[in-house]
Amino acid sequence: MVHLWQTEKKRMKLRGDLPLDLKTGRIDMTHGSGGRAMAQLIERIFARAFDNPALAENNDQARLDFPVGKLAFSTDSFVVSPLFFPGGDIGSLAVHGTVNDVAMSGAKPLWLSAGFIIEEGFPLSDLARITDSMAAAAVKCGVAIVTGDTKVVERGKADGLYINTAGIGAVPDGVDLSAGNVKPGDAILLSGPIGEHGMAVMSRRENLSFDSEILSDSAPLHGLVETMLAAGAGIHALRDPTRGGLAAALNEIAQAANVGMRIDEREVPVSPAVQSACEILGLDPLYVANEGRLIAFCKADDSGKLCDAMRRHEQGRKAAVIGRVVEDRHNFVEMHTILGGRRIVDWPAGEPLPRIC
Amino acid sequence: MVHLWQTEKKRMKLRGDLPLDLKTGRIDMTHGSGGRAMAQLIERIFARAFDNPALAENNDQARLDFPVGKLAFSTDSFVVSPLFFPGGDIGSLAVHGTVNDVAMSGAKPLWLSAGFIIEEGFPLSDLARITDSMAAAAVKCGVAIVTGDTKVVERGKADGLYINTAGIGAVPDGVDLSAGNVKPGDAILLSGPIGEHGMAVMSRRENLSFDSEILSDSAPLHGLVETMLAAGAGIHALRDPTRGGLAAALNEIAQAANVGMRIDEREVPVSPAVQSACEILGLDPLYVANEGRLIAFCKADDSGKLCDAMRRHEQGRKAAVIGRVVEDRHNFVEMHTILGGRRIVDWPAGEPLPRIC
Repeated sequence: MVHLWQTEKKRMKLRGDLPLDLKTGRIDMTHGSGGRAMAQLIERIFARAFDNPALAENNDQARLDFPVGKLAFSTDSFVVSPLFFPGGDIGSLAVHGTVNDVAMSGAKPLWLSAGFIIEEGFPLSDLARITDSMAAAAVKCGVAIVTGDTKVVERGKADGLYINTAGIGAVPDGVDLSAGNVKPGDAILLSGPIGEHGMAVMSRRENLSFDSEILSDSAPLHGLVETMLAAGAGIHALRDPTRGGLAAALNEIAQAANVGMRIDEREVPVSPAVQSACEILGLDPLYVANEGRLIAFCKADDSGKLCDAMRRHEQGRKAAVIGRVVEDRHNFVEMHTILGGRRIVDWPAGEPLPRIC
Repeated sequence: MVHLWQTEKKRMKLRGDLPLDLKTGRIDMTHGSGGRAMAQLIERIFARAFDNPALAENNDQARLDFPVGKLAFSTDSFVVSPLFFPGGDIGSLAVHGTVNDVAMSGAKPLWLSAGFIIEEGFPLSDLARITDSMAAAAVKCGVAIVTGDTKVVERGKADGLYINTAGIGAVPDGVDLSAGNVKPGDAILLSGPIGEHGMAVMSRRENLSFDSEILSDSAPLHGLVETMLAAGAGIHALRDPTRGGLAAALNEIAQAANVGMRIDEREVPVSPAVQSACEILGLDPLYVANEGRLIAFCKADDSGKLCDAMRRHEQGRKAAVIGRVVEDRHNFVEMHTILGGRRIVDWPAGEPLPRIC
């Protein structure tokens, strides 16, 4: 076979099938072709970053031992622009976002898939930086990225890079969190100050600088959820208020549970930096995206206990009880304002902040 | 609360928050904003098409009862262009593609996630046509689309629509199919004629017409796999030869198992229409994508039994034993040609057929 091998070597040389140049190389259409260039990209970038036994089996699917019980399954595509922003990047965001969606069921996140749609010409160095960030976030979340896919589209047919992640988690026995479980009388808790992710992305996109830089709150919430479940409070539902902000999340749950919400503006934590940035841009922090916050609905009697437990966790230091659930056949979210009035917190209308996640 | 409700009605009217126009309406940025327009899109298009109890819970994740045992998990993004092609569309393809990746582990596919990245201006009627096609394909595959996500990007930042699906399946007890299990001496079987998906997409994209229209082979393979497992043959691995065609799939397995492959060109089924279309375009059918074919590796002694079982299934009517696995430290795939010579079937180089899936 020596002669064949030599022919092969010559061929490789002829067609420039050389090692990936991670410093100055760029994605081209061959990286999505199913050929050797794609195999090389997977090996040098993805497999290196996400290394784990399921992925190393080199199959088109991961085979995994699932513990007995209920499974949580979620997906999110990430199209955030810019790809790198203060406090995070599309890679860590793609891990945190799906880990959080899985965790909101009370599940322990276990595995992620990752699908990449990459624009021709995308710098390999940026891709490696992003996969490194994903890998680090996955380690922090205790999840493995066990299966993936890569597509390359022509220049102008994407905006650098889009990432989809899907996640699987195991719901502990006896845990039943769902929007439909929320009841009139429930207390509404929020884990921390709102609007930081959205304003961090906006500030980078619009080249705004504020007195103090606003960092994205992008963070995994599974640990906070575990702490909350252990507190023995009667939790009915959790939700992370991402796109559309706190306003969208409250309206979604109000509609799903056929209830109303009454929020107290004084209790909703907003940092001074976010507050002033929002004022400059004419935005309402209630509508700005978060990527490391959650809202919880629990029995009113347990709200103090739950809030205390949240405050003992890194991701819930500034947790607060922000309102309560009421009967309301119109499913309105109404806010008592600092000035003593009240106003409807409506669904977001229009799109003040596109491509925020 | 009547006064509030009236204010709300007025507001809805003012901002044109009217029912979706499925006939002539188009996607705009509000459909990705997390607001009411997105909720309406999800309800009218996605929830309607994919209706099932897990999805109807309106959570950011699906909660599912997983049977005891091993789980298979896979993902694929679909960027095929054009979105509609002879024999299929991006919707059915997105279901079949991931169902097949899951099935190649021997698993019974159970659930899919669906992530949509939609370009601003995309016709709602096309979106509904595609989700209907996905829903029909899911029914045919016995899977439920249980969780999803929608992102909208600005005009020019995508090419109509990209879909990611991730899939979960349950691997039957005792089934262990993996590329790494392939051994020298194994027989190599192919379930049917190659190149039909790729040539169907190419013909539509390039506005080519041939004497007989070539239809995509896009189809679910889980039923064929079930039949094959029931045949009691010693199957070591399955793979669906998609992007990069049969050539890429054989090279991938050869490398993963550290073996070589010897293929007999006379035994590889190619339809006359694909053969002549490939000749016109200067393509080799070995490198053209399939979306409803599989290759199987089994003990040589069982190859007859397995081939017979495959031929009794709708998706394996033209199954054939096309070659055998050999020891080869260079992992070459070598083909004995019809003319009596032999040639290396190399990895695909370059990208003759971008955006085929």
